[in-house]
This record gives sequence, C-alpha cells and structure tokens, in this order.
Amino acid sequence: MAKKIKTCKDSFVTMTEMVLPNDTNTLNNLMGGRLMHWMDIVSAIAAQRHSNRIVVTASVDNISFSKAIQLGNVVTLNAFVTRAFSSSMEVYIEVTAEDIPSSKKIETNSAFFTFVAVDQTGRPIDVPEVKPETEFEKELYAGALRRRQLRLVLGKRMKPEDATELKEIFKIG
Amino acid sequence: MAKKIKTCKDSFVTMTEMVLPNDTNTLNNLMGGRLMHWMDIVSAIAAQRHSNRIVVTASVDNISFSKAIQLGNVVTLNAFVTRAFSSSMEVYIEVTAEDIPSSKKIETNSAFFTFVAVDQTGRPIDVPEVKPETEFEKELYAGALRRRQLRLVLGKRMKPEDATELKEIFKIG
Amino acid sequence: MAKKIKTCKDSFVTMTEMVLPNDTNTLNNLMGGRLMHWMDIVSAIAAQRHSNRIVVTASVDNISFSKAIQLGNVVTLNAFVTRAFSSSMEVYIEVTAEDIPSSKKIETNSAFFTFVAVDQTGRPIDVPEVKPETEFEKELYAGALRRRQLRLVLGKRMKPEDATELKEIFKIG
Amino acid sequence: MAKKIKTCKDSFVTMTEMVLPNDTNTLNNLMGGRLMHWMDIVSAIAAQRHSNRIVVTASVDNISFSKAIQLGNVVTLNAFVTRAFSSSMEVYIEVTAEDIPSSKKIETNSAFFTFVAVDQTGRPIDVPEVKPETEFEKELYAGALRRRQLRLVLGKRMKPEDATELKEIFKIG
Amino acid sequence: MAKKIKTCKDSFVTMTEMVLPNDTNTLNNLMGGRLMHWMDIVSAIAAQRHSNRIVVTASVDNISFSKAIQLGNVVTLNAFVTRAFSSSMEVYIEVTAEDIPSSKKIETNSAFFTFVAVDQTGRPIDVPEVKPETEFEKELYAGALRRRQLRLVLGKRMKPEDATELKEIFKIG
Amino acid sequence: MAKKIKTCKDSFVTMTEMVLPNDTNTLNNLMGGRLMHWMDIVSAIAAQRHSNRIVVTASVDNISFSKAIQLGNVVTLNAFVTRAFSSSMEVYIEVTAEDIPSSKKIETNSAFFTFVAVDQTGRPIDVPEVKPETEFEKELYAGALRRRQLRLVLGKRMKPEDATELKEIFKIG
Repeated sequence: MAKKIKTCKDSFVTMTEMVLPNDTNTLNNLMGGRLMHWMDIVSAIAAQRHSNRIVVTASVDNISFSKAIQLGNVVTLNAFVTRAFSSSMEVYIEVTAEDIPSSKKIETNSAFFTFVAVDQTGRPIDVPEVKPETEFEKELYAGALRRRQLRLVLGKRMKPEDATELKEIFKIG
Repeated sequence: MAKKIKTCKDSFVTMTEMVLPNDTNTLNNLMGGRLMHWMDIVSAIAAQRHSNRIVVTASVDNISFSKAIQLGNVVTLNAFVTRAFSSSMEVYIEVTAEDIPSSKKIETNSAFFTFVAVDQTGRPIDVPEVKPETEFEKELYAGALRRRQLRLVLGKRMKPEDATELKEIFKIG
Repeated sequence: MAKKIKTCKDSFVTMTEMVLPNDTNTLNNLMGGRLMHWMDIVSAIAAQRHSNRIVVTASVDNISFSKAIQLGNVVTLNAFVTRAFSSSMEVYIEVTAEDIPSSKKIETNSAFFTFVAVDQTGRPIDVPEVKPETEFEKELYAGALRRRQLRLVLGKRMKPEDATELKEIFKIG
Repeated sequence: MAKKIKTCKDSFVTMTEMVLPNDTNTLNNLMGGRLMHWMDIVSAIAAQRHSNRIVVTASVDNISFSKAIQLGNVVTLNAFVTRAFSSSMEVYIEVTAEDIPSSKKIETNSAFFTFVAVDQTGRPIDVPEVKPETEFEKELYAGALRRRQLRLVLGKRMKPEDATELKEIFKIG
Repeated sequence: MAKKIKTCKDSFVTMTEMVLPNDTNTLNNLMGGRLMHWMDIVSAIAAQRHSNRIVVTASVDNISFSKAIQLGNVVTLNAFVTRAFSSSMEVYIEVTAEDIPSSKKIETNSAFFTFVAVDQTGRPIDVPEVKPETEFEKELYAGALRRRQLRLVLGKRMKPEDATELKEIFKIG
Repeated sequence: MAKKIKTCKDSFVTMTEMVLPNDTNTLNNLMGGRLMHWMDIVSAIAAQRHSNRIVVTASVDNISFSKAIQLGNVVTLNAFVTRAFSSSMEVYIEVTAEDIPSSKKIETNSAFFTFVAVDQTGRPIDVPEVKPETEFEKELYAGALRRRQLRLVLGKRMKPEDATELKEIFKIG
C-alpha cells in the first residue's frame, strides 16, 4: 500500500495567547520558559494533525530570544510539519508579538521542534510523508535533513564525519 | 577595580517538582513544554544568583528528550552558571526523574540555557566571571566557547568559517 | 475627518487549545465555564485588533452547549468583529472540536460577545466601523441590529414595543 | 412512586473568590471570562446538589456586565436551582463585588445557566422538581417557562409563533 | 471615641470549591497543601471583612487531616473572626466535604488561623473588637486567650510558666 | 527480618520557587496559603523518599509567619524526615527567602508536617526507622516524641495528664 502523503497546510495550526501577569518577569517581559511551553503545545498539535496519533516531544533545536514580548501583548504562534522521517516529524514554529495600542507586530522567534508519533503502548509508529507546496515550505523541507544531522551529532548519535549534509551549514570541505 | 569572580557553587540551584495531571499528555507522560518551563525557571534563578540582577533568556541550546517521565514522578533540576561572557551567562541544567515506589532514579535530560543580565531599564550589564573548580565544571567551562560559537553560527550572527572552535566538534580540518 | 473603516478580516483571530484534565468534569468532558473563558479571551483579542484599544466585556448572548468536547480534544476558536456601534463591538465566535485519532471535527458552538472600547481612564471611546465582505459577514452584519435590540430589551434598557427589529425574529405582527 | 421535590434552599451554594492579578485586564478589572468560569462552577454545584448527579452545562442566557470589578475585590456568587424540566435545571446566579477598604458592596451581575443531569454513560436522567418558597423564588419559578421558550427559540428548536409565553416579555399581541 | 465592635456574623464567609485532578495525589485524594491554601484565602477574607484592611497571615494552629476528601467532592469552607487582640485576629475555619451522588456530607477539618491587619506601608493597625453572640461563638471567644498563649509559647515569645491559661488545656496544677 | 533504617540525608529534598504576581497580596507579599502549599509538596516528597510509598498529610504543627516574603524573591524549602512512628513520619521544613539584587537571605519559617504512608488501597503501612546523624538531626529526633504528644493532646486523642513528655515543654511539675 502506498504511504499516505499530507501537505503542510494539513497540519497548520494557529494559537493566540495574551501575556498575563504570571507569565512575566519583574521587567514585565514574557518569560522564555512560558513561550517554550506554548511552542511545545502548538507544535504538538501540528504533529498530531499530521499523524493522527499521540506524539511525544523528541527534541528542540537551538532557539534564540532576541526581542522582548511585553505584558498585555497578543502572541500568535503558527506551526506546521515540515518533513517526516518514519515515525518522527519536524515542526516549524513562528512567533509574532503584537502591541495592540500601536498595532505594531514583530516577528520575535522561530523554532524547530521534533516529535515522535507513538501508539497506545508508547511505541513509535510510522507517519505520513510531507509534500511541501510553497517555496518556503520546500526550503524548510530541504533543510530538514541538515538540521536532523545536526541534532544527531549534538545528541552524539551520529559521528560528525558522517554528517555529510552539515558541511553545507559550515561551508567546510 | 578587579572584576568580581564567583564559583559554580555560588549559583547552584536545586528545584524539585511533582508531575501533576495537567502536566501530562494522554499517555500520562510529562509534556516537553512543561519541562522546558521548569528548566527556564531553575536556570534563571542560577543566573540571578550569579549576577544579582534581573536576567532575560537569550537562547536555549538543542535539547533532546529521550526518556519518558511519568505522572507522579519526582523531577529534580540542578542548575549552575558554567561561564560568563560580559553580560551573558551560560547555565547548565541536569534533570533527574525519580519513581518513588521503586526508588529508581534516571537522568533524563541535560540542557544549556543562556541569559543576559539587565539593569532596571532593560539594558545589558556586566556580570562576574566564573571560576570552575571540579573537573566537570572545568570541562563545561572549556566547552562553553565552542557552544557559544555554535549559537552564533546558528543564529546567523557569526560566519561558519570564523567559528574556529567549532571545528573541534565536527573534528574537521 | 472620515471615520476609519475595517474589515472582518482585520480583526480575525484563531485560538487553539488542548483540553487538559483540569478543564474537565468527572465524565472527562470540557466544562462549559472553561470554554466561555476561552471564548472571552479570543473575542477580546478580536475587539482589541479592531479598535486598537483596551476592551471590556459588555455582554454575552445566549449560548447553547449541545455537543460534548472530550479530554485530549483540540479546540479551535475563530472570532471576528461583525459590527460596531459607536464604542461597542459585537464579536462572533465559532468553536470547533477535533478528535485527533479519528481526525473528526465537529462544530460545537457559536456565540456573540459584545465589548466596549475604553481609554486609559476606563471611559468609552469610539471605534472604527465594520465593512463586511463575504455573504456570511454581511448576514451577521445585518443581524447585529436585531441582536442588539434583544440585548437591550433583556437588559431592560429598551422597551419591547420599541424593538422594531425584534419582530423579525419572532415573526410577529 | 411520587417524584421527589426539593426546595431552592436545598441547592443553594455560596462561592467566594478574591480577584488575583491573572484574573484582570490591563485596567486591573476582572475579565468577563473569568467571572463566567466561576458562574459555571457555582451553578454546576447547585445543579449537582439538586439532582445528586453529574451535570453538564446546556446553555447560558444573555449576561450583561455593566459594573467593573477591581483587582483585590472579594467576589461572592450565590446560586440555586429555580425550576426543573425533566432532566434539565435552570440555575439563578447573583454576583456581588465587595471593596474591602470601603466595605462597599455592589451587585454586579445576575445570570441564568441551564444544566442537564446525566448518568455515568452521559445519558439525560430525570431530576426532582423544585418547590419555590419565598416571593422571589416563586417569581423566578414562574418566569422560568418564559426564559425556556426564549432559549428554545434562540436555539432554533422552537418556532417563534409557538412561544406563547414569550409574548409576555414582548408585551405583544 | 469608643472602639468599634463587630459580630462574628459580620465577618462570616463561605467558600465552595470542587476538587479537580490537579488538586489530588495518585490516590485521587485532595492534597493537604491545597486545602490549607483554600483555608488561608477564606480566613483572610473573614479577617478583611472584620478589619476593612489588608491582612497578613501571622500564624496557623495545629491542623489534623483525619478524613480523606475525594476527587469530584464539593468542599465548603466557613470562616469567621472569633476574637481580636489589638491588630491581630483569630479566625475559625470549618471544612465540610460533600459527595454528590450519595449527598453525604462529612466534617473533615477545623482550624485556627491568625491574621494581622496592616496599613498601606505594612505596619500593624488596630481592629474592631469581636462581640460573640451564639453559645459556640462565646466558647470560641473564651478559648482564644488560651490558644493565643499556646501560640506564643510555641513561638518562643512567652515563657511556659507565664502561660497561666494554658494550664487549663493541660489540666495541670 | 530487621526493620530498614534510613538517614535524614536519604529523604532530604530542596525545592526552589520564584514568587509570581498571583502568589501575592496587594502589598506584593507572598500569601501564607501559597507557602503552606509549597511546604506540603516538599515535605510530601521527603516522606515519599523515606517510605517509597504514597503518603497523605496527617497533620501540620503550629506555624508562625513573622517575616514578609516579597514578589520576585527566590524561596528555598529544605525538608527531611526527622523520625518515624510505625506508619507515620514527622518532616521538618526550613524556608529561606532570598532577595536577588541585595543577595540577602533570610530564614523566614520552619515547620513540622506529619505524613502517613499508605498502600494502594489507602491503608497505613509501616515505614523504615530514622537514624539521625548530625547534632541538629539528633535534637529534632529527640524532640519528635514531645511534639507528637502535643499533636495527640491538641487532636484530643491523648489525655493531657498522660503526655509525660509535654511537661518538658511547659517546664511544669
């Protein structure tokens, strides 16, 4: 039987949150841990939509927090599955913060989370493949292999010399 | 005036949490986002102890979640500052999950979070240097430079060819 | 100066939530109060986007809860402003529940919330008008007058005999 | 066997809450959604006391929020079942906000929630009848029929021309 | 000017809570810490009503937890001020748990919390005296002196030999 | 078979928390109930580590709150089992609050909580004995008998005249 294929649109999720007092530090800025908590939920839903399975967080790629999000801001998180590898799925998340009085929106973060689909006993189970459609989706799809190698090398499950795709990032060799 | 120096012990923090129903998915496993939320709090406290300042999360390195933590488990997070770079601090976090009935403890994760110390107006401000004491602290101190370069390359704020320390990781060249 | 006009798309918001144990009753169904809490947040954000102001909930129209939403379901709330009356805005909210394993989606509720835009001292302040574009938006725009009269009559701020539009609902006279 | 009868006092519940920072908007006023969440809990308890059953929220009548409740206020919610119709119960809720320093109490809202009693499989099950005792209880009991017709008409489960009691509200015909 | 006097009824508060999953341990029993959190809120409100001031918890007397409260139970907490000593107030709290299906109510705990009324700068400020009315209120009023001595002795702020009222408890001498 | 013996170190737990807005009253001080909630969790974990069993809170000794803990403070709770009596364990908890900018630490509270170890059906089950090692642990071990008698007398489960150890506290007779 041919393996099922889904588009990025099929797993696309939008989550919107308001920054409340308990989410902030004493400068009234959203704490990073709260944002990562939201990122994990929105990307887990994307992975669930793609796989129609329970999913568990397998890894999170390097995230940088360069712009402060303020108390009262509206935070929008968009997520979709970029590529699947047997039972694992890479999810791309884009975070926007919006200041209501000025109606100014800023792109604050993007991140990649990886999930594994599991059955009711917790064992990994295969998921549909991803068919990227837009230019951006295709770019993310292509880069997924490289990011996967970086994860494996950093997780010490692949030798750096075998990470052929990584040379691309470091423009070495 | 000589810059202040602090040891890793000075910033050491232990946080202990019980996994409650709302922290778990439908397999009764702790959700990754909840764990990252705790990691951010414990490492922020370590960075605050080191700097005696308000701190903001600057980045999170790749984290992998290979072992499931169950509902009712006791989760212990230990964190300390490994090295400081002017206003930024790298914090190492180690997570252990403990199953009470069997008194079995498993090391589930480790992670590196980076924080920036800021003054009351939110501007970066210098922090004390770190003096590692044990073998393990010295190893983390030494590796901090390499991890910092990887962060800068991944954050597109350093060209891969300039990341001389990174060649160490990838054993290239 | 001509009054500003915005479309329904300008205020459109999507919020996505996962039903967690603490949101459910002993039958593992989402409690109505939790859902109304989410409805209030998503519709407040829509009203804030429309008015670029702080908004306060002024009223909620009759809501009926005919379909149960289960623990673990993904709940999607879509909201937009249907019509504005000086400082008040009517927001339409549509709720969908999604069962991941079966990928079955059901429309569970729709509701109308009304908000008032206020300035920093809490006094009502005028908001842009709404320009409906699609057939559905136009229908909601037209019905807003009727629903407003019903609110005023039920809130005893309009005499039933003056509610000319209401006769439409009750097909009387 | 004669059907069981209960008084309004039998189901009467008082709930008291303090308004905390996370319950408020940026004007430090209690958010409407939080109040509705509390209304749902207090009225569900009243319906459970009346029926000794699990209950599910069936509908909420139009609520208007005319007076702001401040951070730090003590909110008191009183609820009791006004009338039962086979498996459904109408609950009346009255909300008072109290400013401690001035010891000023204001009646801020009243609302009607309807619940259905269900058995362990979720199927509707008959509940005791209500015997109103005071003048106010009798008035609410009498009005319940009219409000029920309005709910059915608004929920499109009754034709407006059949809602004979509703004519009373609109003083028509 | 004569000092103001209030009755126990003036400060009486009822709080009702439903036991949710996150409030329970793995036996589905309400955790003691959650119950003490509720006890503190309800008794703080009683002390606020008595004093019309901000109040801070000064001490908690020995509490014993002899009966388990189950998930889904309705918990009722009644509290009132029993006696005032210049700026401090003793509050009595009585907790009842109610199993809805069986409509069985059990008295699970009683406790005494002591609060101090403070002004906006946090300094203690005098409060009205208490006038007990019922037999039970008079008994609590009389016993308050003895309990206060026990608190002072246990807090090492009174020498045991000076605690003349305590001899009553221990029926010694 | 000889009964198992554990040291105080075996059950030692450290919990660290940051005081967030929702944990504070309108003076920005940590509410007593929140602190007791944390005390209950940390001491339950200590009792679980000692007994490798589910534990239920049996009683809390008199606690006094003499020093205010501020919003933003870091709160550290250390707990360990001081002594066991068949199925019950006394846990000692010490609370420290830390103001980050001044790096000032204050000991704010200490408390004794008692837990009972239970099996899966909720019945009490014997726990290991405690072997105190340091001077402080030995002192707490010795005093445990006296505190236990006070609990039994206050809980009306022991006649004051039989509480021979209590005479020690009150230096009577």
